[in-house]
Amino acid sequence: MPYQSPVPHMRFLLDKVVGFDAVRATDRFAEATPDMVDAILTEAGKMCDEVLAPLQRVGDQHPATLENGKVRTPPGFAEGYRAIADGGWIGMSAHPDTGGLGLPMTLTNAVNDMICGACLAIQLNPLMTQGQIEALEHHASEDIKALYIPKLISGDWCGTMNLTEPQAGSDVGALRTKAEPNGDGTYAITGQKIYISWADNDFTENVCHLVLARLPDGAPGTKGISLFMVPKMIPDEDGNPGARNSLRVVSLEHKMGLHGSPTAVMEYNGATGWLVGEPHGGMAAMFTMMNNARLGVGTHGIGVAEGAYQHALAYALDRRQGKVGGTGTIVEHPDVRRMLASMKADTFAARAIAFANAVAIDMGTATDDPAWQARAALLTPITKAFGTEVGMRVAELGVQVHGGMGYIEETGAAQYSRDVRVSAIYEGTNGIQAIDLVGRKMMDGGEAAIALIDEICEGADAAKATLPDLAQDVYEAAETLREAVEWLVAQEMPDRLAGATPFLMGFARVLGGHFHLIAARQGDDGHERLARFYITRLLPEYAAHLAEARAGAADLMALTLDDLGA
Amino acid sequence: MPYQSPVPHMRFLLDKVVGFDAVRATDRFAEATPDMVDAILTEAGKMCDEVLAPLQRVGDQHPATLENGKVRTPPGFAEGYRAIADGGWIGMSAHPDTGGLGLPMTLTNAVNDMICGACLAIQLNPLMTQGQIEALEHHASEDIKALYIPKLISGDWCGTMNLTEPQAGSDVGALRTKAEPNGDGTYAITGQKIYISWADNDFTENVCHLVLARLPDGAPGTKGISLFMVPKMIPDEDGNPGARNSLRVVSLEHKMGLHGSPTAVMEYNGATGWLVGEPHGGMAAMFTMMNNARLGVGTHGIGVAEGAYQHALAYALDRRQGKVGGTGTIVEHPDVRRMLASMKADTFAARAIAFANAVAIDMGTATDDPAWQARAALLTPITKAFGTEVGMRVAELGVQVHGGMGYIEETGAAQYSRDVRVSAIYEGTNGIQAIDLVGRKMMDGGEAAIALIDEICEGADAAKATLPDLAQDVYEAAETLREAVEWLVAQEMPDRLAGATPFLMGFARVLGGHFHLIAARQGDDGHERLARFYITRLLPEYAAHLAEARAGAADLMALTLDDLGA
Repeated sequence: MPYQSPVPHMRFLLDKVVGFDAVRATDRFAEATPDMVDAILTEAGKMCDEVLAPLQRVGDQHPATLENGKVRTPPGFAEGYRAIADGGWIGMSAHPDTGGLGLPMTLTNAVNDMICGACLAIQLNPLMTQGQIEALEHHASEDIKALYIPKLISGDWCGTMNLTEPQAGSDVGALRTKAEPNGDGTYAITGQKIYISWADNDFTENVCHLVLARLPDGAPGTKGISLFMVPKMIPDEDGNPGARNSLRVVSLEHKMGLHGSPTAVMEYNGATGWLVGEPHGGMAAMFTMMNNARLGVGTHGIGVAEGAYQHALAYALDRRQGKVGGTGTIVEHPDVRRMLASMKADTFAARAIAFANAVAIDMGTATDDPAWQARAALLTPITKAFGTEVGMRVAELGVQVHGGMGYIEETGAAQYSRDVRVSAIYEGTNGIQAIDLVGRKMMDGGEAAIALIDEICEGADAAKATLPDLAQDVYEAAETLREAVEWLVAQEMPDRLAGATPFLMGFARVLGGHFHLIAARQGDDGHERLARFYITRLLPEYAAHLAEARAGAADLMALTLDDLGA
Repeated sequence: MPYQSPVPHMRFLLDKVVGFDAVRATDRFAEATPDMVDAILTEAGKMCDEVLAPLQRVGDQHPATLENGKVRTPPGFAEGYRAIADGGWIGMSAHPDTGGLGLPMTLTNAVNDMICGACLAIQLNPLMTQGQIEALEHHASEDIKALYIPKLISGDWCGTMNLTEPQAGSDVGALRTKAEPNGDGTYAITGQKIYISWADNDFTENVCHLVLARLPDGAPGTKGISLFMVPKMIPDEDGNPGARNSLRVVSLEHKMGLHGSPTAVMEYNGATGWLVGEPHGGMAAMFTMMNNARLGVGTHGIGVAEGAYQHALAYALDRRQGKVGGTGTIVEHPDVRRMLASMKADTFAARAIAFANAVAIDMGTATDDPAWQARAALLTPITKAFGTEVGMRVAELGVQVHGGMGYIEETGAAQYSRDVRVSAIYEGTNGIQAIDLVGRKMMDGGEAAIALIDEICEGADAAKATLPDLAQDVYEAAETLREAVEWLVAQEMPDRLAGATPFLMGFARVLGGHFHLIAARQGDDGHERLARFYITRLLPEYAAHLAEARAGAADLMALTLDDLGA
């Protein structure tokens, strides 16, 4: 059974679970009528199922390569990319002023999700471009916007993010790449960048690198970093690709997975760049791009979970082992059923969180309401880390459902596991997401978190009449989460940091219960059964996570290097 | 920092935590004095560190191949294998009657653990041979024992297990391979077997296949299965390798990891075989081999966890990111410290369980006490499933500690994750282990489990005076486990099966707390700190697991195929 984009399921989530109606009720997104959403999801789903899904295995078996300084992409990737670009899926949420469709981020996210399920390696390319478009919209000069954004939207050009250097990973402030004024308004960019996803390809006219670098008068650390547009081909006077810029792909990495996506070491030798945003304001601009990308990477985990789940379910429905009733296949074995149900219930939870995150982004954009913006900011690290944890866990279970076949590469189950592994690392490791959640996202004293917890409690109250046991479980979980938030905001940073990851996981588990409960309330037995599975079997994890979140730093940091065996 | 076998740690576990003194107090194992154990661990550790550890990456980068029907092993593997064989490590627990050293299985297990940490792919070969020796000792005729066992112990020949067929995986009873009497006491074996680990190599004189097949009068299902010795080269009158048998390696699998270990499809075309054990008694003989192998595969997870942990710790101690005190490296970041401590604490827990399992096996062998034998049988599925879960989790965290570098194959972190993945599948998937635990291992009405829980409670009582808070946590966990066991044995199979995996995981979590608490009671601050970490942060998971274990089958099986999206 090949991959099938979960279009009806996504419509259900949008309409019944995450409150997309509020988005289409705004002036900004009034266009996003139910009919239009239907048309978009159906059309994108068709492309994913027919054009992109067949590329998934190809990308793994024919990795991107570097030949004489040129990147060669896997067979069919050029056509796959063209389908995405021609479908208008790259710039659908870009601002209409520069050629975008101005559609809600929620829809971009849904389409990205389907593309990830079909072929993760290819999706990473438009994701980078989408983030770049948003960064340019917010920070670039009108000239740069007018020149670059339409080309990025059409997909004729694509974008990359250049942050990491060998000595500067999670600590971006340690970067050494230099930008020196050329005297004509441009800058000479010199330095090396690593882990550059889709740094080059053989199917776009140009590749537009957004590069973090330090001006001569830039302070040390993150405060002295600026952002530059450094195109592979320097646009000529007509805006067409002109002279080759002084940059090159040095090498491609040999990765555990995601072989279809070239990951490069990049070298800039006095390459010509244009300042984007204010001097020394690079981090702010980059954060715009990264926040977008973090939702997108959470969706990497979710899309892969969907793909891995469908793949495992198809196998389980086909494989006969032991004497069982019903279908006569292993899907009738309780432990296999448990694995499949876990996969489905967790994918539901993670996707609902991501969709709710996207809705909050759209509401923040449409209404400028700081409460919505705070909601979006709060959910972003949760979506990223939980979405990718679910991706890893579901892909791992997908291998397990296959038994021995799961370990054989030809089956395809292992690829989901290898591909999705990086999503817990890139765009800020999941540890960094957790630190963001307990640090920056709690600088409001927990206000945004408490507002969300209040909503969870209201949802549980509303469910009490029809689903009393499930409602009670979610209510108790929400109250435990409230206590954890209150405890957390009263602590100093070391104690917060020591519990950051379990806090994030506990928060996500409770949110998952909330959305499952909303789904169950729609009166559909299937959703009620899945919600019951999640709330009875997966939700209870929250207690251990939130207890660990409050364990503090003292015991942890008391472990000496000697204790660790160093 | 290259791999270092954890010799002092293993001595600590043996002497202070898992009660190895009881083993050496028996007549059978009186030879295993502290000095001898020291000498064995030190000598084996030296071989692992110096000879085997350098082969780990080689095996991944130069997979075993099939050329003109012959298996070529990675460069250096022949020498590595020779070192293991010449060290006497293959047959150290084999019975002295047929040339073994008759040493405790606990020591074989410790040595296997170190070999797994150094190079998992190569260890799988002697593990199969060890299982074969044990199966022959218990079930083969004197002639077969005299002919094969000395060659297996010396490593001149090696052994394999042939169970699985394409239609017969977890359901072994569905096998179709036939055995027809040749009239001279031998049998003609015909059929295809898959997933045969180390089915062939280019460094032993002979390969001895133990093959499950059905005699003409064999009943359908597992009751009609017999076991046969089917050597690659038929021994001549002097017991030397003679004529080539009618069997061949059809192909090798392309696996997610463990590339150094050839995994074959085998074809038997009327190959000459000798019956091992009674006609139709194959499953009993195979279970002897598999129980041994299940402890060994649990140890695969534990050894890899050790290797992955050391590898990640070395990276963390070297990598500078952000401004931190102390070493100035990422090991000072609370979230990194948390990951490393989790890795170490879980590896400790899983290894203590495996060692205790081995001690129970030895005590059962030495005393014939059914209580010890029941303890060994109870712990085997827990060791296998929890050891390999810990292996996967620790290897995954090892990648995470490396950040972006973890996803780059050259770093080596990803290999641990890919290699260990199969350990949760082979020798019975972890789901099968859980079913074994709640089914066959609870046929005593929970007696063996309750006896172990009583010991946990006694341990907690003994710790009350000096470590009251930790003792209390472990005590409560043990009581919750007791309730789960009592509930479980009162249920019908579907309800047991639905909770089998979480029950196993909850049981293991509690056992881990028990052994950590014993270690903490030894008065060494380091062990107390690690125990505190485990008991505060990892143990609490048991509550969710054991609650899920008691959730029953009704809700789970009520999920329709439609609900699952099929």
